[in-house]
Amino acid sequence: MDCIFCKIVNKELPAWLVAETEDYLAFLDIKPVQPGHTLVIPKKHYEDLLSLPEESAVGLIKFAKIVAKAVVKGTASSGFNLTLNNGVTAGQVINHCHFHIIPRLAHDQLPAWPHKDYQINQAEDLSVKIAAYFKEL
Amino acid sequence: MDCIFCKIVNKELPAWLVAETEDYLAFLDIKPVQPGHTLVIPKKHYEDLLSLPEESAVGLIKFAKIVAKAVVKGTASSGFNLTLNNGVTAGQVINHCHFHIIPRLAHDQLPAWPHKDYQINQAEDLSVKIAAYFKEL
Repeated sequence: MDCIFCKIVNKELPAWLVAETEDYLAFLDIKPVQPGHTLVIPKKHYEDLLSLPEESAVGLIKFAKIVAKAVVKGTASSGFNLTLNNGVTAGQVINHCHFHIIPRLAHDQLPAWPHKDYQINQAEDLSVKIAAYFKEL
Repeated sequence: MDCIFCKIVNKELPAWLVAETEDYLAFLDIKPVQPGHTLVIPKKHYEDLLSLPEESAVGLIKFAKIVAKAVVKGTASSGFNLTLNNGVTAGQVINHCHFHIIPRLAHDQLPAWPHKDYQINQAEDLSVKIAAYFKEL
């Protein structure tokens, strides 16, 4: 399979590794949002979070939690963003499920996404719709 | 405790609820980045991901995965961002651990964070540091 992350897992491509277990791997993003920006992946190839089996999602979040602590310490930062982009429209570039851990410093000037207001009834209608789908799952 | 999310859990404040289990709750963000922007929380109060016990982190990601599917269906979107802001510098506003699920549409024009280049040796030095902390954890 022509997947960059699979090649990193198989040591066919180099990476700045920061953590490895039997099933998970963490390495630096080569084009970081902030220095120390780390990617956390399951070694087995799954396209995104929705196709990741529950067991792997559980293992991935446990691993990410520990890696995040190490990233915060290693970068002497005061917080971090844990983010996952699911799908091309969400900004997913590599189709191998991964979390980003982005260390944050005060005044690092990363912009927050703008927030909007709901129109009348829009939120209620949407919550009813989403709740109905949740009950089916 | 004067926590807005605890008050929502205890039904002392209203919210547009979308999903609820014994230990977890999902409801719409009142100032959404996109319509259908949903927050997923453990009912029990923990300040952030690092203070969340492993068992709760596991339950939270399992719940978030199902809620994300419902959000995507309910908003007819083609992807989503799953994000967690850990600490004030990371943009955490409410000190009750929560994931954001932000449904995404093609051309919704949410900006991606800018990426940088590493200086010579910077990435290698950082990866060695982070890896050393990981081994201690």
